[in-house]
Amino acid sequence: MQRATSLLVHIDPGGPEGLQRQIYGSIRRAILEGRLRPGARVPSSRALARDLGVSRTTTVLALEQLAAEGYLHARPASGLFVADLALEGLARPAAAAGPAAARHPPLSRRGLELAAITAPGGRIPGPPRPFRIGVPALDLFPTRPWCEVVTRRVRVLARQQLDYGDARGLPALRRAIADHVSTTRGTRCTADQVLVVAGAQQGIDLACHLLLDPGDPAWLEEPAYPGALSALRRASARIVPVPVDAEGLDVEAGRRLAPAARLAYVTPSHQFPLGLTMSLPRRLALLRWAQGAGAWVVEDDYDSEFRHGVHPVPCLHGLDADGRVVYVGSFSKSLAPALRLGFLVSAAGLVEQARAVRRAADLHPPLLEQAALADFMTQGHFERHLRRMRAAYRERLAGLKDAAHAVGAGALSLRPIRAGLHCVADLVDADAVRVARQAAARGVEVMPLAAYCADPGAAPQALVLGFAAVRPEDLWDGMRLLVSAIEAARRT
Amino acid sequence: MQRATSLLVHIDPGGPEGLQRQIYGSIRRAILEGRLRPGARVPSSRALARDLGVSRTTTVLALEQLAAEGYLHARPASGLFVADLALEGLARPAAAAGPAAARHPPLSRRGLELAAITAPGGRIPGPPRPFRIGVPALDLFPTRPWCEVVTRRVRVLARQQLDYGDARGLPALRRAIADHVSTTRGTRCTADQVLVVAGAQQGIDLACHLLLDPGDPAWLEEPAYPGALSALRRASARIVPVPVDAEGLDVEAGRRLAPAARLAYVTPSHQFPLGLTMSLPRRLALLRWAQGAGAWVVEDDYDSEFRHGVHPVPCLHGLDADGRVVYVGSFSKSLAPALRLGFLVSAAGLVEQARAVRRAADLHPPLLEQAALADFMTQGHFERHLRRMRAAYRERLAGLKDAAHAVGAGALSLRPIRAGLHCVADLVDADAVRVARQAAARGVEVMPLAAYCADPGAAPQALVLGFAAVRPEDLWDGMRLLVSAIEAARRT
Repeated sequence: MQRATSLLVHIDPGGPEGLQRQIYGSIRRAILEGRLRPGARVPSSRALARDLGVSRTTTVLALEQLAAEGYLHARPASGLFVADLALEGLARPAAAAGPAAARHPPLSRRGLELAAITAPGGRIPGPPRPFRIGVPALDLFPTRPWCEVVTRRVRVLARQQLDYGDARGLPALRRAIADHVSTTRGTRCTADQVLVVAGAQQGIDLACHLLLDPGDPAWLEEPAYPGALSALRRASARIVPVPVDAEGLDVEAGRRLAPAARLAYVTPSHQFPLGLTMSLPRRLALLRWAQGAGAWVVEDDYDSEFRHGVHPVPCLHGLDADGRVVYVGSFSKSLAPALRLGFLVSAAGLVEQARAVRRAADLHPPLLEQAALADFMTQGHFERHLRRMRAAYRERLAGLKDAAHAVGAGALSLRPIRAGLHCVADLVDADAVRVARQAAARGVEVMPLAAYCADPGAAPQALVLGFAAVRPEDLWDGMRLLVSAIEAARRT
Repeated sequence: MQRATSLLVHIDPGGPEGLQRQIYGSIRRAILEGRLRPGARVPSSRALARDLGVSRTTTVLALEQLAAEGYLHARPASGLFVADLALEGLARPAAAAGPAAARHPPLSRRGLELAAITAPGGRIPGPPRPFRIGVPALDLFPTRPWCEVVTRRVRVLARQQLDYGDARGLPALRRAIADHVSTTRGTRCTADQVLVVAGAQQGIDLACHLLLDPGDPAWLEEPAYPGALSALRRASARIVPVPVDAEGLDVEAGRRLAPAARLAYVTPSHQFPLGLTMSLPRRLALLRWAQGAGAWVVEDDYDSEFRHGVHPVPCLHGLDADGRVVYVGSFSKSLAPALRLGFLVSAAGLVEQARAVRRAADLHPPLLEQAALADFMTQGHFERHLRRMRAAYRERLAGLKDAAHAVGAGALSLRPIRAGLHCVADLVDADAVRVARQAAARGVEVMPLAAYCADPGAAPQALVLGFAAVRPEDLWDGMRLLVSAIEAARRT
């Protein structure tokens, strides 16, 4: 029995796992790998204990566990035997060759398409560098009041609110959001039209699942926010890129390409990535088409809090009389991306239905950030922070413009910008992809406009430049490096 | 001009909106509602200021805003005129009759199906009552260490980690989860196989979107966790209910119903809602079918930390040699639902692909809870909490059993339970739906088993009873009330 036992059971008295667990695991593996055949008799607990030099209790418990799980069965008065698990033909952990990834089934087409969308590249890991896109001035984050509301709230919640919550979000936060967007964005909504979501991305994802069936055609701006592309793909929509011109989405072109689309995704306040504002005639033309086609409009207002010059243009949602515009907002630009908070505003009945779709996605938003943000808003910290940020972004945008004028003339020219936290720079006689590569080598992050295009070949040689994430003096340094990158790209 | 102005512009000097905003809004509404026709001349800023008794600057800024947005256009030397916005046929905010919800387009079929799934009812709002399901012992939540880790972390994060994060989750948390499931659940995984998700629900939703295309058949346990049903519907799968018998999912029945299904969703450790453990032969039969069919298996191990009696049965994932089992875990039962944290464990390559699907859903998990939980786990608080909870649940389960025996005999009988936080009680000669209604009237929450069945008519007259959320003495009180509810239901 000594020999059989040592073949069967390897124990390591100094190992991290307990002896009972090790004995159980060894025998289980031997059965699954076919080294112990069905019907084979297993050493008695007494013999095992003696051979392994462990207590009888240890071996008894290990064998009982194996019997309880069905690996062994007892025959009265004759001991424990290996069960017939009909393992023939079943891939076994040890016998299997090659990495597991090579043997699992293929992904779905949807999964493969999503995996093929590369996250927008061009980002250098670490803290923001000049011209990072999509990131606000995190160096000016209101650390003290934010920590205060979180610290106070976690103590309350840890006693009172640990259970499942409402998929629509915390009532206090929904009220604060309704007040905020009614005042600043012209949506004229109440709290029962607001659904709290995990950032604009989840808002778009929920809207797509709520409003579209697989295969339904949907208009997507060309060029577009890559997150909208992936949300539409996740919902298995048929994506119809519709060109954007100087007035915004070309509604007539959309009509020609897919007159019966079920949905149009737009960024009217500050087109992503081109940075322009959709004109009033275009907004009305879009609503007119949507009325005729019975289509939905998803309005992504991701960074509209920041407008440079005249008053903010009210959102499209405020022009809509039918409840066909679903408005998506985010706290990623107005506060910080790591919080993962945003909101949907829609007709009140639709919120009830969106709630079911949210439940199916991930039940509801985490409570702590919601409660903290509600306090932060009702105590006036958010409004104060936005005011401070507007001043900071004015200064940073001025820095970018001055630097582009003083240092970048002859290398690039900025397009006009009226809102948001990034703008487009046309390159003078240089290839944008090469420039981006040269810039990255110099620690500067720029994105070729083509990266956001369904047809990159047709894109102009231009870069998208964020100006919010770093200080004006860093933007000057970044511009010098960018100009040297442009010069280097021209030589290669 | 006086008359025209007062028709056109209503201002309220004491209102919450500034005068400039009110003037702008009045004129804009008059244009959109057709009261001011295209080509009409608008009063000059001077006349408006005089008529309204406000400063000239106020009216100039309001009119400039309207011109900038395209509502008015200037003709040199003759003033501002209403633009031709071609509003004919466009629904207008004021003219529209009835609630907006009545006029927006219909939802998608997917949206309607999801909205038709009612959240599992039977829940009385407020703190947990006897036999609430799916909620752990929140009265024993480790408030002090949790508040400590959150308070410490929020200060660090608010300075250093506010930017977008990794869709796979925080590396420290992924390591802590890999250690935890390897030790307690037999998954033998490393951190690069772990994806942090917003609770088991999001784990299932991501798996369905990654692994299934619209219309793909998928096995769902009958009866089943309603969240799995809604996640499969969200991914537009074709759902095939497969019966569960005393050994767990009936694999042969599944083979007959849909041999070429692409995925099977199972709860092997503790079937939801029946509470039984899948036998080893069934586990192997499931894997054998999946190998032959090229199918995926989603293993939802939602409350497996709690097992009453012998060692936990290792998860199905540990038996899988191919990487075809995707393991879903949750912190909702082991810590608290409000945190919205869970995880997927899969083949490492699959995590990279799941990351893309997660990005499309909501980019990444919020950072604060992740960082706090990583600290909580690595500092040993989680293991301590689980030990404490195992003892508490032993006591609560004993309370339930004793009460059912002492008080409930003749009214109901508990089925055996080996794991998890709820069990099934067969009713003696009573209708489960009537009992649930009578119980609710007495402040007791019970769910008819039929509520989880695709074919409720075929379900036995039984209730699902949670025993984790309240103290043993409350379970005794609850049992007395439940028995009186059963007696009342027999009389009606």
